[in-house]
Amino acid sequence: MTAVSDSERLARAALTRVIEPGDETGGRWLRELGAVALADRLTSGGDALPGVGANRWAGLLSRAARARPKADLAAAGAAGARFVCPGDLEWPAQLDDLGDGRPIGLWVRGRPSLRIWALRSVAIVGARACTEYGAHMAALLGSQLAERGWVVVSGGAYGVDGAAHRGALGASGATVAVLACGVDSPYPRGHTELITRIAEQGLVIGELPPGDHPTPRRFVLRNRVIAALTRGTVVVEAAHRSGALSTARIAQRLGRFTMGVPGQATSSLSAGVHDLLRGESVLVTDAAEVVELVGDMGELAPPRPGTTRPRDLLAPALAQVLDALPARGAAAPDDIARSAVTTPDDAVARLYELRSLGFVERHGDGWQLTRQKDRGANPARRTP
Amino acid sequence: MTAVSDSERLARAALTRVIEPGDETGGRWLRELGAVALADRLTSGGDALPGVGANRWAGLLSRAARARPKADLAAAGAAGARFVCPGDLEWPAQLDDLGDGRPIGLWVRGRPSLRIWALRSVAIVGARACTEYGAHMAALLGSQLAERGWVVVSGGAYGVDGAAHRGALGASGATVAVLACGVDSPYPRGHTELITRIAEQGLVIGELPPGDHPTPRRFVLRNRVIAALTRGTVVVEAAHRSGALSTARIAQRLGRFTMGVPGQATSSLSAGVHDLLRGESVLVTDAAEVVELVGDMGELAPPRPGTTRPRDLLAPALAQVLDALPARGAAAPDDIARSAVTTPDDAVARLYELRSLGFVERHGDGWQLTRQKDRGANPARRTP
Repeated sequence: MTAVSDSERLARAALTRVIEPGDETGGRWLRELGAVALADRLTSGGDALPGVGANRWAGLLSRAARARPKADLAAAGAAGARFVCPGDLEWPAQLDDLGDGRPIGLWVRGRPSLRIWALRSVAIVGARACTEYGAHMAALLGSQLAERGWVVVSGGAYGVDGAAHRGALGASGATVAVLACGVDSPYPRGHTELITRIAEQGLVIGELPPGDHPTPRRFVLRNRVIAALTRGTVVVEAAHRSGALSTARIAQRLGRFTMGVPGQATSSLSAGVHDLLRGESVLVTDAAEVVELVGDMGELAPPRPGTTRPRDLLAPALAQVLDALPARGAAAPDDIARSAVTTPDDAVARLYELRSLGFVERHGDGWQLTRQKDRGANPARRTP
Repeated sequence: MTAVSDSERLARAALTRVIEPGDETGGRWLRELGAVALADRLTSGGDALPGVGANRWAGLLSRAARARPKADLAAAGAAGARFVCPGDLEWPAQLDDLGDGRPIGLWVRGRPSLRIWALRSVAIVGARACTEYGAHMAALLGSQLAERGWVVVSGGAYGVDGAAHRGALGASGATVAVLACGVDSPYPRGHTELITRIAEQGLVIGELPPGDHPTPRRFVLRNRVIAALTRGTVVVEAAHRSGALSTARIAQRLGRFTMGVPGQATSSLSAGVHDLLRGESVLVTDAAEVVELVGDMGELAPPRPGTTRPRDLLAPALAQVLDALPARGAAAPDDIARSAVTTPDDAVARLYELRSLGFVERHGDGWQLTRQKDRGANPARRTP
């Protein structure tokens, strides 16, 4: 089921301990040489690659000499984590938009499929030292988005991040924490319990191998993963020059939606958000407005007379399961599987995929078609 | 100095008592028949004009029979007001953008030239029952805009309007109240003192003749005058479906700038503003951001190598006065008049016009050139 060989995975695991997140020179070597050859060259103490100074090369060799990828993979496994690489079925293809800055691989803690979850995800980011208002809005958006079947992605930090995660968890919803450290060694310490809960109910992911700790630069570069992974980024509160703004700017550069929650003009913690809103970002005050924007899926444009219907674009196996749902009301997975002539396990997997694409909804144990009007609107044409 | 004959002015004064503000049928008759013929037809009890029902025509005739335009003009004069008509030098030509909904004339209380003041004016509007935050922002914008030489236009109402006027007055600045009633009978009563101060320090204007009172419809139609008169409209606080939003929507339709001051997403008094900001309106948090937008004068684009300089577009008489100002520091009007080979009175009139176009500034009794950097920036290209 996977195109990633053991040696490739081992090499990439080693490289996550050698090459810093977002290092585009390292990313270029990886693309040009392949993971195995690059890891070999580094661990065998080979000659410096073009475009790298002697000191830096020596630093990389010394890191490579200490890399123990087998032990890291084992430690990750013990902590309930796996190492997902480009080429794996679970790899979220949208991260490839980062080019040579694409993560070497992602350490993933939690049961759900990162790829499926990321398809229908929104980032909520903002100030660590947020106001009560900021925390309220982050929690509200987190829970409202979760209730609507959206996955809430954030950075696990104090303030806005934590409130957004908690909001989603409180609604028994899906949330993903993207850490700037090993997924087995949560940071900040005060969020150990929160991050553990996220790993149980959702996903905790990161580029750094087990046990590794965050640095200021790693926090900043973590933001590009949040931006690239999600359909859009909502900034709740952010002062001028805040890290949350960098997430939004990367999201903009990657063609993702960017949104901001307004605050009082007199609040310095809203000043950065207001700057965004004076640019290309869209003002949002609740989850409905967020979904109105990010829910407009380019690849699934609303049906117009004479054009392809969205479901016509589905892979046959998916269309078969979709066709097995009743026109009204919900059906049990077993019944759906029978109609679609497949196994219940396969039917459930397809149903989750269809949900991530907005076609179906889960209600308790039953599944039903999403009402059409929820998918037909084009929010971009909304007039004020 | 004026193209408006006494009989035309008298006829228009009479019509302000007969035809309601913004009545486009009345405006069409006025355009097709002329003011004198229309007033004659109405006061002489002539046949109904096309497209008007018998009842409505009878109502108009009964109003016309009671019109006493000479007495109204005298009452206005006694209250320190004049009646400014299309064709008068003081008529603000931008009101013609209202088409057949253009005011028949404007009753004007106060010394300054309405035309000159309106050239460099911004509307600040919003909820009557605003929050403390809304009142604070309205007063702040009013005073900051006034300090920058901008004229603050509003509706004289409680809440945001009053705070904006007071902010401008407090900065010894220029402000215009556009009333939905006679300019001699201020409404609301509780603002009698404020409106009297505005008439002394600025301008109080309206479409209704002396003694006439406001109606809900007149409030709404007054908003089109505020929108049309100004370069742009700033909405400070407004609930959904508030009157201030109608001002902004008219401003948008007329191609004026529209702006909104953000508030907390949880405040129902900011909900209307946020709706605007999700459309074409620009988020502003201070006067600098307002001026950045409305100060970008299409007809006076920033100088670029090889293109026309803004001053090259000035009428020769204006350019002559502009050329008479020293490169640095201020000069007295008498000196400027001598250099420009004109009378001191003419020089002062030209200087005020040049100020309204952003070329010169007044400091006490002296006049000096505006520093170049204040005019060179193109705010539309500002990146977030």
